[in-house]
Amino acid sequence: MRNLAADDELRFLSLNTATVRGQGDLLTILDAAARHGISIVSPWRDQVQDVGLDRAVRALRDGRFALSGYCRGGLFPTDADHRAEERGDNRRAIDEALALGAPCLVIVVGGLPQYTRSDAAPSHDIADARAQVADGLAAMLDYAESVGMPLALEPLHPMTAAERSCLNTLRQALDLCDQLDPQRSRGLGIALDVYHVWWDFEVMEQIARMGRDRLLTFHVCDWLVPTTNLLTGRGMMGDGVIEIRKLRGAVEALGYEGACEVEVLSDDWWRRPIDEVLETMIERYHTAC
Amino acid sequence: MRNLAADDELRFLSLNTATVRGQGDLLTILDAAARHGISIVSPWRDQVQDVGLDRAVRALRDGRFALSGYCRGGLFPTDADHRAEERGDNRRAIDEALALGAPCLVIVVGGLPQYTRSDAAPSHDIADARAQVADGLAAMLDYAESVGMPLALEPLHPMTAAERSCLNTLRQALDLCDQLDPQRSRGLGIALDVYHVWWDFEVMEQIARMGRDRLLTFHVCDWLVPTTNLLTGRGMMGDGVIEIRKLRGAVEALGYEGACEVEVLSDDWWRRPIDEVLETMIERYHTAC
Repeated sequence: MRNLAADDELRFLSLNTATVRGQGDLLTILDAAARHGISIVSPWRDQVQDVGLDRAVRALRDGRFALSGYCRGGLFPTDADHRAEERGDNRRAIDEALALGAPCLVIVVGGLPQYTRSDAAPSHDIADARAQVADGLAAMLDYAESVGMPLALEPLHPMTAAERSCLNTLRQALDLCDQLDPQRSRGLGIALDVYHVWWDFEVMEQIARMGRDRLLTFHVCDWLVPTTNLLTGRGMMGDGVIEIRKLRGAVEALGYEGACEVEVLSDDWWRRPIDEVLETMIERYHTAC
Repeated sequence: MRNLAADDELRFLSLNTATVRGQGDLLTILDAAARHGISIVSPWRDQVQDVGLDRAVRALRDGRFALSGYCRGGLFPTDADHRAEERGDNRRAIDEALALGAPCLVIVVGGLPQYTRSDAAPSHDIADARAQVADGLAAMLDYAESVGMPLALEPLHPMTAAERSCLNTLRQALDLCDQLDPQRSRGLGIALDVYHVWWDFEVMEQIARMGRDRLLTFHVCDWLVPTTNLLTGRGMMGDGVIEIRKLRGAVEALGYEGACEVEVLSDDWWRRPIDEVLETMIERYHTAC
């Protein structure tokens, strides 16, 4: 297992740019990251769109940043009127990920249709939403494979099932990988975030099932007690109850040598100065991961 | 499948008394229940203790109430200093359930030790908490079996894993049943609450695995969007996104003919007049279950 406490050059630390989305645009974030010696980032689509794709590509290149991923495609469940929009948008996400040089596109599959697109016909049929996810992902994978962009399915915590993601456990995500890519050859894998899976009694067994080839990126943050917001109540590593090191040990036992990507969606941290957030993040990367 | 819309006599409706715990003590609640024609209840331990066990037994008998369960035993993970306290308390819970004539004692297993007993030695080791659950439940089952009180394991939503329950899916609960009672003869089963399991992609398959003999009680309420409190943000049936009828259909397909127990833990409903809550609950029992 790697000793992150000794990683003074931050070779394995990635900043998911949503962690400081409250503090400025993508260019501001990249400047701050460079100031703190951070050389790997994972930007979000809306942040890239805000500054423009070309400018984002230039800023990443000029700053010599590597990417650990691009967030995010997916949001499949919708109605017939929005189907073409969903398909087109997911194709564009792949093209953007290519332009940015991302090693994978993270997929958040979406929940019930009306919570992704407020004008979509409402439904409570979660089984149907899951069928749409399988169909949408199959279509997306055809294109992603043809252009060589791996797709990283991110199972999200069950408390997000209605609003954000009806893909909720690593078992479920791996079942979907087995279904769409039984030969493990098409570039379909997992974005594993400790926040979403730490509670799962079979997570260690499912990590072993996943294998090195299916682990595309690894995210960290912490589960706070109490958690006061389902979406933006996440904690900085070390402030909560997740056994991050145990989970990192399990993925490194597979042979994973990629980044620890810090993604803290938090009203609290978004209100603090960006340098304080990044300093704390780096300290916790050394001491609590 | 039973037609609850036509159940004017409320033969299958049970009031979990926590639904109106904000409005008065157990005696007040039983009076209100009788006023509304409700004849099945499921009381909580603290509510029974507040009025005294003997008085509670008398009030239930005088009001000719049947019980659908007694809430709750469990909370196993702790430290060595509190072990005897946990074991004694769980034995008393069984004795109380017997005195009350409950058909089962609902078990909420507990999360990390420090969130159940604030003076217990803190731990983040959720695997150890789960091992303690298995040990504690084994000890409890020996006594429960000897006196004939069935234990109903309630898997709680994964968002409660740290604070309330490290038993989080029906699969996990059934694995534990298989481990402790492989012959299915010892009176160990499940309290299935739609709130905790609706999100699970394999809930239908696990309900089939459970079988009629292992389903001891069935709870309903609803998942609100947005959910603003992890513990007390539940909704009245029909106000959220859970496909209650689909889940009820699955348990009735097993042969379940027991009560639909309404357990709504909600700051919102606790603030309303008790008659309004019970009227609404009865209406939704007819229209949204």
